[in-house]
Parts: sequence; structure tokens; C-alpha cells
Amino acid sequence: MKVIRDPLHGHIKMDELALKLIDTPQMQRLRRIRQLGFAYLVYPGANHTRFEHSLGTYNLAGILLDQLGIENEEIRVAALLHDIGHGPYSHSTEEIIQKYTKKTHEDVFGLIKKGEIKEILDEFSLSRDKIVKRIKGISDIEILHSEIDVDRMDYLIRDAYYTGVAFGLVDYLRLIHEMDFYSGKLVVKMGGIQAVESLLVSRFLMRPTVYYHHVSRIAESMLIRALDYLIEEKRLKVSELKRMDDYELNVFIKNSEGYARETIDRINDRKLFKRALYIGQGYINTGDLNRKNVRRTEKEIAETVGIDDGYVLIDVPKSPKIEETKAKILVNGDIKPLDEISQIVKTLESAQWENWRIGVYTLKEHLSVVEKVAKEVLGVEKMHRQQTLERF
Amino acid sequence: MKVIRDPLHGHIKMDELALKLIDTPQMQRLRRIRQLGFAYLVYPGANHTRFEHSLGTYNLAGILLDQLGIENEEIRVAALLHDIGHGPYSHSTEEIIQKYTKKTHEDVFGLIKKGEIKEILDEFSLSRDKIVKRIKGISDIEILHSEIDVDRMDYLIRDAYYTGVAFGLVDYLRLIHEMDFYSGKLVVKMGGIQAVESLLVSRFLMRPTVYYHHVSRIAESMLIRALDYLIEEKRLKVSELKRMDDYELNVFIKNSEGYARETIDRINDRKLFKRALYIGQGYINTGDLNRKNVRRTEKEIAETVGIDDGYVLIDVPKSPKIEETKAKILVNGDIKPLDEISQIVKTLESAQWENWRIGVYTLKEHLSVVEKVAKEVLGVEKMHRQQTLERF
Amino acid sequence: MKVIRDPLHGHIKMDELALKLIDTPQMQRLRRIRQLGFAYLVYPGANHTRFEHSLGTYNLAGILLDQLGIENEEIRVAALLHDIGHGPYSHSTEEIIQKYTKKTHEDVFGLIKKGEIKEILDEFSLSRDKIVKRIKGISDIEILHSEIDVDRMDYLIRDAYYTGVAFGLVDYLRLIHEMDFYSGKLVVKMGGIQAVESLLVSRFLMRPTVYYHHVSRIAESMLIRALDYLIEEKRLKVSELKRMDDYELNVFIKNSEGYARETIDRINDRKLFKRALYIGQGYINTGDLNRKNVRRTEKEIAETVGIDDGYVLIDVPKSPKIEETKAKILVNGDIKPLDEISQIVKTLESAQWENWRIGVYTLKEHLSVVEKVAKEVLGVEKMHRQQTLERF
Amino acid sequence: MKVIRDPLHGHIKMDELALKLIDTPQMQRLRRIRQLGFAYLVYPGANHTRFEHSLGTYNLAGILLDQLGIENEEIRVAALLHDIGHGPYSHSTEEIIQKYTKKTHEDVFGLIKKGEIKEILDEFSLSRDKIVKRIKGISDIEILHSEIDVDRMDYLIRDAYYTGVAFGLVDYLRLIHEMDFYSGKLVVKMGGIQAVESLLVSRFLMRPTVYYHHVSRIAESMLIRALDYLIEEKRLKVSELKRMDDYELNVFIKNSEGYARETIDRINDRKLFKRALYIGQGYINTGDLNRKNVRRTEKEIAETVGIDDGYVLIDVPKSPKIEETKAKILVNGDIKPLDEISQIVKTLESAQWENWRIGVYTLKEHLSVVEKVAKEVLGVEKMHRQQTLERF
Repeated sequence: MKVIRDPLHGHIKMDELALKLIDTPQMQRLRRIRQLGFAYLVYPGANHTRFEHSLGTYNLAGILLDQLGIENEEIRVAALLHDIGHGPYSHSTEEIIQKYTKKTHEDVFGLIKKGEIKEILDEFSLSRDKIVKRIKGISDIEILHSEIDVDRMDYLIRDAYYTGVAFGLVDYLRLIHEMDFYSGKLVVKMGGIQAVESLLVSRFLMRPTVYYHHVSRIAESMLIRALDYLIEEKRLKVSELKRMDDYELNVFIKNSEGYARETIDRINDRKLFKRALYIGQGYINTGDLNRKNVRRTEKEIAETVGIDDGYVLIDVPKSPKIEETKAKILVNGDIKPLDEISQIVKTLESAQWENWRIGVYTLKEHLSVVEKVAKEVLGVEKMHRQQTLERF
Repeated sequence: MKVIRDPLHGHIKMDELALKLIDTPQMQRLRRIRQLGFAYLVYPGANHTRFEHSLGTYNLAGILLDQLGIENEEIRVAALLHDIGHGPYSHSTEEIIQKYTKKTHEDVFGLIKKGEIKEILDEFSLSRDKIVKRIKGISDIEILHSEIDVDRMDYLIRDAYYTGVAFGLVDYLRLIHEMDFYSGKLVVKMGGIQAVESLLVSRFLMRPTVYYHHVSRIAESMLIRALDYLIEEKRLKVSELKRMDDYELNVFIKNSEGYARETIDRINDRKLFKRALYIGQGYINTGDLNRKNVRRTEKEIAETVGIDDGYVLIDVPKSPKIEETKAKILVNGDIKPLDEISQIVKTLESAQWENWRIGVYTLKEHLSVVEKVAKEVLGVEKMHRQQTLERF
Repeated sequence: MKVIRDPLHGHIKMDELALKLIDTPQMQRLRRIRQLGFAYLVYPGANHTRFEHSLGTYNLAGILLDQLGIENEEIRVAALLHDIGHGPYSHSTEEIIQKYTKKTHEDVFGLIKKGEIKEILDEFSLSRDKIVKRIKGISDIEILHSEIDVDRMDYLIRDAYYTGVAFGLVDYLRLIHEMDFYSGKLVVKMGGIQAVESLLVSRFLMRPTVYYHHVSRIAESMLIRALDYLIEEKRLKVSELKRMDDYELNVFIKNSEGYARETIDRINDRKLFKRALYIGQGYINTGDLNRKNVRRTEKEIAETVGIDDGYVLIDVPKSPKIEETKAKILVNGDIKPLDEISQIVKTLESAQWENWRIGVYTLKEHLSVVEKVAKEVLGVEKMHRQQTLERF
Repeated sequence: MKVIRDPLHGHIKMDELALKLIDTPQMQRLRRIRQLGFAYLVYPGANHTRFEHSLGTYNLAGILLDQLGIENEEIRVAALLHDIGHGPYSHSTEEIIQKYTKKTHEDVFGLIKKGEIKEILDEFSLSRDKIVKRIKGISDIEILHSEIDVDRMDYLIRDAYYTGVAFGLVDYLRLIHEMDFYSGKLVVKMGGIQAVESLLVSRFLMRPTVYYHHVSRIAESMLIRALDYLIEEKRLKVSELKRMDDYELNVFIKNSEGYARETIDRINDRKLFKRALYIGQGYINTGDLNRKNVRRTEKEIAETVGIDDGYVLIDVPKSPKIEETKAKILVNGDIKPLDEISQIVKTLESAQWENWRIGVYTLKEHLSVVEKVAKEVLGVEKMHRQQTLERF
């Protein structure tokens, strides 16, 4: 038993197996992947990594297993390894990797079927299949990947700690204390209802403030476009991309040419595109502007304005979805979905759309003309103003 | 300029006027009044006082005035003095004092029309009337007493700090930063909308967890009944009660006899009544059981059970009400009420009832029989189970 | 197993025995005794009680026992009960109670030989004698009462948390992690040496800033004089005094007359005596002014000045002493005293005197004349200036 | 005026000038340089950057200037820019850059004599010379670079926050509050003496625990050796090295071959050399082993053992030195050096050596033989055991 110091959880106790696992290249690589992608451009403290989040998740999984009276080494290992499949800049490259490979960051089988991790798991007689299933959430005891899980608890408090934004503070001690098994299912007892509501509202508030802040979204949109070009022109293989860390991807693009090189310089020097237009739900027929035809529309706007392709970016975030609303609550002996018990949670599903925005980004010098043209092309009457700190 | 150390705000800067004011008996008395009444019986750290909350409110008022570019000494003084009218155990005696005097703790005129505070205000040429109006919220610049005010900001973060409950953490820096004057009104700009939502949800979650925790409510109900007897039997004058501090009231009752003496011993030794029944909204026709006829009903239950009057207590909390839903939000040049902008806030108004409970309390040994009889007398079919930590 | 929320330790787990013990009058009384006596007059947040400190000590004792692999119910109980012998206002009345009874607050035998605590201990077959020995520190396993003990760890971090003073932050997780048994003795391994140094320096810095702040000392000196009069004039029995809580003592004195009544009003309204003189070690022959002849000297000064006895108070703090310097450190298989390993700790013993001060206190209006006369009577050439925040 | 969120200071207010300056490539580069070099290998949370530390220093400089009643834009700018001269991995490359260029990271003139920063300074009519002098500490008002300066205050609390080590918590609010000008010099008043002592003891304790933790030192020693080879073999220019960020240096070495490539893989995968020997002061004639002849000695040991050059590294840290001991303290109208006022500070100078260690590092498989040979070659009788957490 050794301990590792974590600013959130104090001391994290790690057994021999866990210590061996974290000293593999797959885990150590996570030290060079920022947890929140480009959020550091808005919140200068947001430099925390997938590595420490993995330790934190492992720690909470252990606390929860203790609370439930379960001894299950595979779950603990899955908690530790659950993020090794992430590409560089975390979620920022998720979409593009998925587009080309049809795989999410949870498809980690390829990473543990050989090499150091495989050897360690074999040494401790642990099933790789079971661990992968835990990570992908295909299992009966849903500690790691569930409506209310330890992954989410750790990242909310961790993101709050490093950004300095007070919203993410979740009473995870209370929440874990109120979790139990009932009829073979992981439930939250009524005593934890406020803690669950708090967790969900925290996520709800963290979205516009941190996770979907327009400055992060702009940097991310720019990077994705640059990667698209590099992949389309066969200058970068997706199979290589997904194994890179932030360092490697950053320097790789810096060593490229043209648009991609210009983009990474803009990101590194924070000379980002600006927001020309911000369109809330209801102000546009979003059916017309799905993620598919976005590039055609961007091109149309750019041509009309008279600038090069790639200098007008349209950012259509995924539809907000909150799985946690279906968390199982134990009420007087019955299991009910959370949104039946809690009005506030029920509301969150639709309220999410209040913070959802399509963004149109371009160079500073073209802002007003792009705004005008984009409104016409997209058929927008009115636009939303940013709801967060103007600059950061 | 001197500074006072506060665990929440760091250093609070106080000018000569403020320093003189806090050294008056009226202000110093607040050092002996717990901010949260009997919450310390549930949360052992909840020993903070009205005094430190007053300093914190003064500090936030100053920060907000700076942000707004306003120099107004009366507002700052009002922030400092706003709680001097509280009776012992804060809100626990509020209802009973109001019942007999028809005055709230905000009617502080009697406390500043003579004595040290008057002299200090005269010395600094400040208007007592204006200060009282500020405290009562009858004024144009609503910094202290408004839908979103510095009083609430301070107590939410302070109560969270001392109870250790994570819900109360409000991003007050952000909120204050986004407040402004517009058309002569105090508004919150859209950049502060998440901070406002967070504040309201925090209050919503703090209610069942801290403010209305059944153990506090039981102690409070017991105290109120004891005080009722003492006042009815002319053993205690309300005019004296309202000027006491926690110490004086506690010892005064300990020196009395009968039910009152037994009650304070029970509270001090934590041998409290227990919850026999917990009835949520919708399970009872609350119109039938208003605060007026409660004592008659209690008596009826006690008689049926065969125990003395005073050993069955029915606790009917006030209807939940959230004034903040009408906070003024500045949206694209228009001022709109918050609940029109924010679905989540709109929901809070009705969601509050989810946590509202009528409690029936009695001695441990009579629990089951009182539960049975009370259900019949009140016509309750089903009862709610407690939603917070069972014991504390 | 129930949990209690503590702002420092999060959740404190308590078993049935502990839960029964805290619900006794002796333990509940600690909820009405401030941990830091009159420090709240300087630090408005310092309202924490002996009760929560007792829970915290119990919690740390449990963590340390787990770390050592020891199961010992008596130690845990001793940790919980260790402060039940405290008089009102904690250390402020310790000296006077000891003067008359020759007993310290650790002599708790009388409190557990009958009544509720006895019954509970009997029910769980626990030895009262062993528990008392643990509390008094007469035992082999010195977890609670040692050079480095859990009592000190808890109060340092707790006092820092509530005063807002950053000095008291001790890395207790690290310290406990580095404690072990070796040759039947509790030792700290070398990996914990910085944590121990930090603990000792914290105490060193907390003394002048918090524990011996002159405003607390003035209030304490005033109270002690008032109690002396009350006891000498047989208006108060020491046996009663030591069982009072803060509330009872405060109101008892308020209901008395003369000097005592005036004193408690002064303390409650913060119209305290002021410091006329502050004399550091070396500026006076302290041998001449021991705690014995202080009252004669006070009288002499008062008479010379022409004011009543009791209005000049001389405060001679105990000689600073740091037991922790002898903590057992395990170095390459040998046990050595801490001050042999750590220069900084060795220094603390003498450095303590830098912060040691004799104070001469009187009414504001007599400050300069008392200063002059006291200097003559005491033979002081030079006086020290206060080393902490002037006002608070 | 815009605000930036910082987890330590809350909101940092920045004016137009500051906002322009942070958006320059020189400042943005600091976002890709970890504040603590390789400490993240021990403390997983230690991913904070020079960028946020620069904002924090700017913020504290502003608070201190306000406290002193000084308006000086150049000092504020110097605080913001003071770290732009750092090489990649902060202090880890400082020594090697200095060896070849004879310049420290404070020689920033080359970075501001042209380019964006120059233009901004010209626009605001600020003197580059004055700013460079401030950064180098050649100025009369020593706010940034002094015995007690805002740079140190910020990094101590920041390093504590991100590592989770409790030692670094400095009461900077109190310290700044007690600073003043006196006879043209920046002094600390006696009321701040504990805060200063706390700051110095914090640094003292942070050294062995964080700054000089052997795992960081090993990674650093390995990197320096790799860089030495690359520079000696003309595969890397020092002028390029000093302008790289962590990302660029890491990938540059990864793209190299031989020892350097192996080294960065070892660092990235945490397959580090291990400590074969740890020698405290007094156990070796350190005069014999100065930093000059270290490589010859390493070679001798490696040859005797029979392994390649580069696989035995001897790490001789600089002699500990604490400039703060000469901080100016204002005592009764005289300015005295701190170590005359404070015994504890005086002790720190010599106590530092208790934590000073020469380390001999090699591959795990050669540990025992290298230990044996190194002891002979170096003439060591006894070695010190590690004083911090064994693993991390």
C-alpha cells in the first residue's frame, strides 16, 4: 500500500496492482493530456490532466465499493484505466476520431490486449474482457458508467477546483453514503436526493460556464478543421492521431504547413477566431443545419463574403442530453426514475436548450460582414448574446 | 481603516464608523446568537453567529457598491446593523415574537433611536430613518434586501462553510461582477445568469438539508411551545424575550419550572422528541390544518393517546416562497424577471413543495401510538420518509 | 454506523457506542463551551466548541489506530471523552479551577464513575480506569496524549479553519501515515519529519496570533479576577463553577453585583481594559514577579495611581514549554528525540520566549499614568510593542 | 477592466494594458511551461503553469501597491512579465542554459526589445529599461524581487494548492497588510512577523517535500544529461532550447536518437533511474565533489561498475540559501534584519542543510553495485535515508 497525494481527495491509497498499472506508458501518457481540452484558454488554472482524474475515479470507486460491501478488483481497475482511450486534448478530438474510426474513447480493448497492461492483468489473473465491459458500461454493477457514477463525481469537483468556478461542488461523500444495492441494482436512497440534484444542477451550470464556453469551442472548432484538412490530404493518419498526447499533436501541427500550421499558431498565441453570431435554439431551423451540411454552408458564407474556405466556421454542438435523469431512486421500497421524484431534474432536460448555441466564428476583421451574410444564409432573425464572462 | 479576519472573506476592511458601531452592545449581543438556531444539533460545526454574518454582509455590500460605483454610507451601515433586531436563537423565536408583537426582526427603529448607536449615527450625520428603510427593504437601491441580495449571498456561503454541507457554495464574486444599474434598477446581466441560478438552487437544496432539517425543527417546536406556556402564564414578557441572547434565554428557562424547564433540559441534553409522522404536501388537506388550529389538534391527539398536552407537537412550516424568482435580468436591453429567462428557476417555485413536510413529534415511547392516532385525526393515508441523513 | 458531518474531516463515522456516549449530558454540555475561550473577541469566527473538537479527535484517533493496525475501544472512547472535564470558557477558567481544586481538566474520574456514561461503559464492558488513564496520558500507547497526538492535530487545523488564520494547517494525513510502532513505542518515521516540524511551527505561530492574543488575555484576566472575588466572597463555589457551561457562567455573573457584574458587561459589550504595558522576557526580572505576588503588585500600582483595586491587572503567562520537541523519531533503526534531528524544533524551545509577554491592563482613561507607574514599580526600562494586528 | 478567474485569488482584475500583454506569444508560451518542472511525477496535480503564476504575481503586486499607496505601472508590468525568460520545464533547464549562455531567466531584455511586447509598451509609453530592472531586482522599490516578495508569496500558495501539500499556506493577506514604506525602504511591521516566519518556514518545508523531492531531481538530472549530450554533439542549440516550451522540448528529444531519446521515453513512461545513494552534508567532503568534477566522478563509477557513461548520475544541489533572512523589519522605529528579530529564521539558514542531499542515481538493476562503488569512490561512510514519501 502506497499513497499518492491528491489535492481533492487528500491521500489516495493504491495497492501493488494499481501502482504497476499507473506506471505503464498508456497511463503515463494521460499526464500529457489536459482533462478539459482548451478550457485553459479561458480558465488559466484548468491544466489538470486525465491522469489525476483517473486516480480520483479509482479512489471514489474504492470508497463506493467499500460502502456497498463489494470486493471487485475488475471494477477498480476499470476505474483506473477508463480514460486510456482518449485522444489528445480529450474531448476536442473525440468527434473527429469517431468520425473516421467509428469508435469512442471507451473502446480500449486494443490498448490492453497486449503490452504492459496485458502482462500485469495476466499476472493478477484479471479478465480483460470484464474490464473492457466495465469501461464501456456493459455490466450489471454500474459504478463507473451509470446515471450517477464516480467518473462524473470526480470530474465535477476536479474541474471546479482547477477552474475556480464554484458550481461543480458536489457533496460526493453524502451521495456515496446514500448509495446501495437493492434488487440487484445500484440505487440512491432518499437521503441522497439533494446530493443527486446538486450533482445534476452542477453539470447543468458547468456546461455554459466551462465545458461549452465559446472560447474553448472556437479553439476546438479551429483544431478540428485543421485536423480534417490534414487527414483528408493524407498528411495525418487517424490511427496515429488517436495515440498522440497533447504535446505530440501540438508540435506535429506546428511542423506542418498552410492552414494547419496557421491554426496551431493562432491557438498557441491565443489569436483565435471571434464569434460573429450566436444562435440559440428556436432562432433557426436546426433541422436545416445538421452536422452533415455544415461545411457546405460555411463555404457558401465564405464565398459570399469573399474569404478563403476555412475562415468561417460553424459550430453545432451536440443536442444536450442528461442521462442522469433516469438514475434509480429508492422510495419507500420502490425504485423510481429520478425525474419522477424531482421536478428540478425533470426541468433540466428541457432547460439545457437554454444554454445551447450554434456559433459562427471568423477572423476579427470579417466579423460584421460574416454576421450579416451568415444571418441571411441561415435565415436567422435574432441572435443570442453570450451568457458568460465576455473575455474569459 | 482596520481589518478583521473572516474565514470566508479573508480580511474585512472596516472604517472608523463601522468599528464604532460594532463595539456597541446591540452589535456585540449578536456574538451570542447562533446564526442557525438549533442546526448545531445536527451539524456540530454550525456555531457561527449573527455577528460574523453581519460583518460578512457589510463586506459584500461594500464590494457591490464599489462595483456599481456608488458611495452610500447608509447602505453600508444598514448592512452592518441589519440583524440587530433578531431574537435569541435567530429564526427559532421569530415566529413567536411576531405573533405577540406583530413586528419582525427588521423593525429595528427602537434599537437605534437612542443609546450608543444613535450617538454614533448622529456624530457621522447619518439618517436613522434611511437606515431603517434600507433594513426593511423600502428603498430604491436594493442591495441589502432584494430578490438577489448580499445578505443571502453571505449566509449561504457561511452556512455551507460551517455546516460542511457543499450545497451553499455560491459564486458571489461572479454574481457581484455581473450586477449593474440600469434604468435606476439593480439588475443582473446575462453573464451572471448561471451564478444566480446557482444561488437559488443552493437555497433550494439547503432547505431540507440544513434549514428545515427535522431535528432542528423538533428542537424549535419544543422551544416555541415552552415559550408559549411561559408567556401565557405571564412568567416571561415578550419585550424581554426579544432582547435576550441565546445564553440568557437558555439559562432563564433552565431556572424556570415544569414543562419549560424539562424542555430546555431535553434540548441541552439532546433528548429530543422524535418524529412520529412526516406528511408531504398532497397527503393531507392542509387547508384543514392551518397554523391557527394546530394546538387544538395536538390536544385532541394527545388526549386520544392519553398523554399530557405539550407532548404531541404538530409542526406546520410556512409555505415555501422564493422571492428571487423575480430578480431583474438584463437581456438585450430589456429587464425581464428571472423566471421568464430560466426554466430551472421557474421550476423551483413548485419544486419547493417536494421538500415541505408537516411533522408530528412526540416522546420516543409514544411514537407508534401517536403515529396511528395522528394519521386518523389528520386523515393521512401515506407519509413521507425523511429525506436527509437519518441521525444528523 | 452513522455519520456526522464535520467541515474539517467530512464525514465522521460513529459506531453505536460512540453515538450513545455523545448523547450524554456531559458530552452535550461541550456544545456550549467555546473551544478557544475569548478568542472570538478577536476572530469573529472562533465560535467552535469542545464538542466538535471531541468528535474530530475521536475521528483522528480512529484513523491512527487503523494505520497502526490496533483495535482498542478504550482509546477511541478516551479520545471522545477527553475534554468533558473542561470548565466554562475552556482554558480561561482552567487556572482558577486548578488553583482551588488542585485538579486539571483531565481528572475526569468523577464524571464517569456514575450516571449515563458509567452505564454505557458498563454495557459495553469497558474499563473506566483505563479510559481515565488514557485521558491523563498514563498509558503505554500514547495516541491521545503524547508529544505528537491526535488532540493537537485536530485543534490546530480546527482553530485555523474557524479563525481564518492560515498558520494552523498541519499535514495530518501525512503525519499519521508516517506514524508506527517500534519497540513498543509510538514513533514518527523520517518521511514524516516535515509534517512534524510543520505541526510544531504551527503551534509556535498560533500562540501569539491566536492563543495568546492580548485581547483574549485581557478578557481572560478580567474574568479570572471577577471569579476570584466571587469565590473569595463565597458567592460562587468552585465545585459549581467547574460544572457550568459558558452560558451558565455568563448569566450567573450577569446576575451578580459589583465588580463581577461590571466585568461581564465589559466582556459582553467589548468594553475591555486596554494594554498599558507589554513586557517581554529580559526586560524585567521575572523572578521578582511570579504568579504568587502579582496581586500585591497590582494593588501597589493601583494605589499609587489612585484607582480601585481590580482596575490594574498584571498578566503573567505560564512559561512556554513545548513537549513535542521530545517526540520519538525513527532514524535508521534508532529512536531519537525530535530536537536532536531537527534544528528548527530545537530552536523553538528558546524562540518561544520571543512571543512571551507580561501584560499590564487597565481602563482606557488610566492608560498613560498606569504605564508610567507600572514601569517604575516593576523596574522596566523598555517595553515591547504588540506583535499582532492592532485591533483584532 | 476585465476579470480572469483564478482558483487562488478568485477574480483577478486586469486593465487594457495587462490584457494586451498577456495575449502576446511570449506570455502565451508560459501556458505550456509547467511551474514546477517534473514535480508532477510525484504530485499528479502539479500541472500548473508559469502563466497562471504570472497572473497571480501581477495580482499580488497590485494589492501591495494599493496597500502602499503607490501607483506604478512599470512594477505591475514587471510582475506580469517576470517569468517570460524561463526555459522549458522551468528551473529544470535553468542551470544548463546558464552554463552555456551565462544568463539567467531574468535577463529578459532580448524578449521585449522588439515584437509585440515592445509595441505595447511603446503604445503605453512605458520604459523597457525600467521594467527589465524591476524584473532583475535592480530598483529601489523591491516589490517583485526582494527578501519578501509577491513572486514568492504567489508560488508558495499556488504550489501548495496544486500539489495538495499543506505546508505552503502563507498568510499573504496579513503579510501584505503589514508591509509599508519607511525611510524609502519596503519594511514589514512587527504585526507581520508571524506571517513572515510562516512564509520562510513554508519554503523551508516545501523544499525537501516538493521542490527537491528526489523523484523530480532524478528526472531533472536525466534531462540535463540528455541535453548536455545534444548540445555537445551540436544536435541542439542553446539559443533554440531557451525559447522552447515543454511541448517542443519533449517532442524534439523524442525525435532524436540514442541516449536522449531513451531518456525522454524513460521520463514520459516514468521508468526513471533510482536512487543508489543519498548523502547528507557532513558525510562527504563536498569540497572534493563540486559541480565541476561531477562528470569525471560519474564516469569513474560507471567504468568500475562496467556500465556505459550516462547511467550513473551524481546530483549535487546548489547550497541552500535563504535571502529572506535579511528582510527588513520595522521595530520601534528601527529597521532590523529579520534574523536578528526571529530566532526561528536565524536557525533556518543552517537547518536547510539538514535537507540537503547529494544523490547518486542509476538503473534499477545496478542499484546495489553502484551504491557500493559510489561509496568507495566518494569516501562515504554512511548515507541518509529519504525523508519524504518513499514512492511519491
